[in-house]
This record gives sequence, structure tokens and C-alpha cells, in this order.
Amino acid sequence: MNSAVTISLDAMGGDHGAAVVVPAALDYLRNDPDVCLILVGNEALLREKIGGHSFGDRLRFHHASQEVGMDELPSKALRGKKDSSMRVAINLVKEGVADACVSAGNTGALMATSRFVLKMLPNVDRPAIITALPSIEGQTYMLDLGANVDCSAEHLFQFAVMGSEQVSAVADISNPRIGLLNIGQEEIKGNEQVKGAHELLAASSLNYIGYVEGDDVFKGGVDVVVADGFVGNVALKSSEGVAKMISHAMKESFRRNWLTKLAGLAAMPVLKAFRRRIDPRRYNGASLLGLRGIVIKSHGGADQLAFENAIGIARKEVLTDVLSRIASQVEKHLEKREGA
Amino acid sequence: MNSAVTISLDAMGGDHGAAVVVPAALDYLRNDPDVCLILVGNEALLREKIGGHSFGDRLRFHHASQEVGMDELPSKALRGKKDSSMRVAINLVKEGVADACVSAGNTGALMATSRFVLKMLPNVDRPAIITALPSIEGQTYMLDLGANVDCSAEHLFQFAVMGSEQVSAVADISNPRIGLLNIGQEEIKGNEQVKGAHELLAASSLNYIGYVEGDDVFKGGVDVVVADGFVGNVALKSSEGVAKMISHAMKESFRRNWLTKLAGLAAMPVLKAFRRRIDPRRYNGASLLGLRGIVIKSHGGADQLAFENAIGIARKEVLTDVLSRIASQVEKHLEKREGA
Repeated sequence: MNSAVTISLDAMGGDHGAAVVVPAALDYLRNDPDVCLILVGNEALLREKIGGHSFGDRLRFHHASQEVGMDELPSKALRGKKDSSMRVAINLVKEGVADACVSAGNTGALMATSRFVLKMLPNVDRPAIITALPSIEGQTYMLDLGANVDCSAEHLFQFAVMGSEQVSAVADISNPRIGLLNIGQEEIKGNEQVKGAHELLAASSLNYIGYVEGDDVFKGGVDVVVADGFVGNVALKSSEGVAKMISHAMKESFRRNWLTKLAGLAAMPVLKAFRRRIDPRRYNGASLLGLRGIVIKSHGGADQLAFENAIGIARKEVLTDVLSRIASQVEKHLEKREGA
Repeated sequence: MNSAVTISLDAMGGDHGAAVVVPAALDYLRNDPDVCLILVGNEALLREKIGGHSFGDRLRFHHASQEVGMDELPSKALRGKKDSSMRVAINLVKEGVADACVSAGNTGALMATSRFVLKMLPNVDRPAIITALPSIEGQTYMLDLGANVDCSAEHLFQFAVMGSEQVSAVADISNPRIGLLNIGQEEIKGNEQVKGAHELLAASSLNYIGYVEGDDVFKGGVDVVVADGFVGNVALKSSEGVAKMISHAMKESFRRNWLTKLAGLAAMPVLKAFRRRIDPRRYNGASLLGLRGIVIKSHGGADQLAFENAIGIARKEVLTDVLSRIASQVEKHLEKREGA
């Protein structure tokens, strides 16, 4: 065996479970010779789905007898599902058998289980979820996307430190521009937490560019947008909703009559290229930051292409050693601030 | 004179001031014979811009010597600009000379001035900003969009009561479906304020359908989405950002080469119809709720068509008597809750 990256996959997680994870794994292995995958779940079922395909040592199985439901309470999954595909996939990271894990299972359970199994990095109070979003310039990263409902200024500052290093590593941007999500009106600008985080960020050596608004996420001009999980999640979901509505309206416009259908036919290659560009599947794979291990959350409804994208993100995080980079940055920035 | 609706316009407000407000007013008067408009601002300048056009009594002028800057602090505008076009336009509503007013001036100043001049409705603690947004089903209303950064459960409940009646009147939907904006993860669902508002709403006689997420705003299935001003503003701005990014990406896709340009030409009528459908100008005009008078905030960057839309909203609010309807609903729901 070579020194390849090994990634454990929660093969039963998500809306489609093995029906998506298995074909995604096979296709991924075909395209990337330097990655080994461990399918975690009902081994008999997984072996059956794999059929005649063989990748030797590059594709392994790890049996897990339970599954975490998409609506299962995190605390219940944590207590009652000690042999779930999700938990075992994370255990493999803890044990050093896998370098990272990917799950499309429910976010709350994944977060709670990862935190319990892997523990937090030193100096980090809470984990945060980060993902890339398309922007006019290319892409913008946003965190937290829902792990934390009420955040203190200190928490937001920690997110900024982690997000900065994450994006620096994964997107290869040195000194990423950090923005703090706020609203525009001057005197009532921000709540106390946001104002406090603003002070901490302005005093830090991060490349802090100040407050940004919701539309800046998609405009460009900022690499990492920091928000508490409630606000970040609402921004993310609203954006998804608008994109779907626009796509729906566009399809309807082209379907109205034979003339518009003809126009749609003529425009098809362009519309396809356009859709590829803003295809949410290409952005699938959110990272759980702040843990002592790499965990990637795939969208629950992800299809094969989207799940493969999440595996690719896991691989990149391993290769760029993002974990130790974040750990050292957190230490540096917290020390620095305490000594200020 | 007939019993027409009279609307005062802050003719100097917004990014473009009289350059947009005057042509919008003239065009509006041409299309709607039952409305009288009062242009408030630098009278000499306004008369000059009107040129030879005459609408008799239907177009009047009211001089105001000052203007509120788009970045001016609300408190400063309130103290130092007592003869601003914004302030005077609101005064005309207070004095009963106008039935409603429209301003594209800065939101913070408009809110502070309206609140100071008009005062709050009984039983309402804080004003809120509401607007319609396009959805797959038609449209969804959302409030608050930025007037209030930190809201209690009680404030959110008041927004719901006002929003319900507003939408019932203006959109002619009896018993509108009310949703409370939240995030999806079960155990960490919502902060204390949202949970508290959920209890109040569930116990009320409003048509409360429970928690909704950011994407539901654009999906349909809900008529009024309630959120605190920080979250609502971020959702609104993020949505605007995504829509702009998509439109940008689409234009670029069609502009790439002569072949794609040709395809764009073929698809032009469809693309135009599509753009008209989601045209943000058709949704321009946010209402300030909770005041003892009708004030409509037009987008600062609104063009003529968009500003006319805001005038149309003001007219509709007057004709549907939304103010007294909201006042009586607030009283009813608060009494009911106190007695429960």
C-alpha cells in the first residue's frame, strides 16, 4: 500500500444512503488513484451493491449494524446508536484508520457525534460549519451555517480564525479577506455580539475587511463571511430558495408554448453551461471546523456527483493538513489577544 | 376636488432624488386618475423639472429647504433636519393633508423620523418593515427587514399580528398563513426569543403554520414570514445577492461568443418574459408597520418604474384602510392573550 489518503464514508447516511454513496465511491476511486475509501454500514448490503467491481485494498468495508435517521434527535443518536454507520465512520478517524470522514447524515447528529468522539481542538469553544458558495468573483466561504444558535463575540472571533486558515489551506488564498455579516443601518448596526466581534477582529492580525451584508456573499470582494449559525443558516437557505425559484421560473418561461420551447432548444447549450457554473452540487461538502479530526457533511439529498465533490473536499483537507494549520492559528491568535 | 387618495412624495430622497421621483410622479398621474401627489422638496427645482406638464390640483408642491443624506445618522437627521423633504412629507401625513407618504431616503432616518412624527399605534412596541418577495407560488411577505436588531418573543408576536392583517388587506388573502423563520436542526432549533414567539403564536387565533426555513420564503406555502430585523435583513440581502449573481452568470454565458450570442437572440423574448416575472422593481415598496400613518420606503436605488410601484403600494394601503385594520387586530390579539 502507498501513503494514500484514506477516507471513511458513512454509507447509510443521507436521504438515499448506499444508493448514492456506493456509486459515488466507485466513480471516485476510478478517477482518483491516490485515495482509499472505507464504506461503513451494512456490509452484506454494501458488498452486494458493489457487485463485481474491485479496487483491491483501495476499497474496504467496515460493518456497522445501525443507522441514524435523518430526523433523529442528536442526543438520541449519541446515546442509542453506538454502532451506527455515522458513529463508526467517525470512530475510524479517531483511531487513525481513516484520515477524514464524509457523511450525508443529519447535521445535528453528525455534529454531536463528531464532537463527542473526536473532541474539540484546544482553545476552540464550539465547532462551526463552513462551506463555499458561488460568487460573481468565484467563490466565498461562509460560517457558521447552523451549528451554533447563540454566539458570543468570542465565538464569532474563533470562527473567523478557523475560517481564515481553512480557506487559506483549502482554497489556497494567502491571507483571506474576512468579513463580519451585519446589516446596513448605521446606528442600529449589529447586535452586541457582532459589535464585540468587530472589535476583536479589528485588533487581530487577520485580514479583516469589516462588516459585509448579505449580498456581499455573492458579489465577491470577501473570502470568508462570519456569522452566527442562525443567521448563516438563514442566509444559506434563503439563497438556495431564490436559486430554485429562479430556475423554476426560467424553466416555466421556456415551456410555455412551442415557440418558447424552440427558443429553449436554441439556447440549450448556453443554459447548460450556465447551470453547470452555478450548480450547487459543485459546492457540496461542508466542513465541521474546530474538531480534532476532519469531518465533511454532505447535503442529505446529495446525488452521486455532489457526494463525490464532498469526498474531494475531504481529500483536499487531508493533503493540505488543514487540521494542524487551524490548531496552530487558533493558538497563535488566542495567545496574541490575551497578551494584548 | 374628488375624494381621491393623496400621497406625499419625498422628492429629494434616494440615490437619484428628483431625477427619479419627478418622472415617476408624472407617469403615475397619467395612469391613475384617482390619485393626487404632493412633491416635497426644493420647489423651484421641482417646478423646473416638471416643465410644461400640468395635472391641475392633482399635482401639488410643498417646499422643504433641507435634504437627508443617504448615509446620515438617523439621530442627526431627526435633530438637525427639521425642514427636510423627508420630514415634511411625513408631517403632511401627520397633519392629514396626505393619506400616505413615500420616500426612497435612508431607512434609518425614515424610520426614526416616522416614529417621532407619527407615533406608534397603541399596544405596538416597535415598528417593523415588511415587503413582498416573489415565490414559486406567487409572493411571500417577510418582516422585519431591519428596523429591529434584537427582538423579544413579544415583539415577534406583534410583527406577526401586524403582518397578518397587512397581508390580509393589501394582498386580499383572508387569514394568511404565518410562518416563523427558524433553522432546521431539531434540538438546537431556534433561540429563546424564537421559541417564545412560537408559543405565543401557537396559542393565538392567527393562522400560524409553525416554523419555516429560509428557502420556504421563495417556495411558497406561507404568506407571511416573521423574523427579527437582523435575520430578515440578511435573508433579504442574501436573496438579492444570489439573484444578481445568477443574472450576471446568465448574461456572461450568452455573451461568450457569436454562437452563444445567436442563441441569446433566439431566446431573447423568453428571457425578457422571465426577467419581468422576477423583476425586483415590481416588488419595490416596503411598508413601515406599527405607526399611526402610512409610510412606504422605496429602495434607495429605485428607478422610475420601481418608484411608481411604491406609490401604488401606498395607494393600496390607503384604499384598504390597512391602518385601522392593523390597529384593531393588535388590540384584539393583545387583549386575547392577556386574558388567556
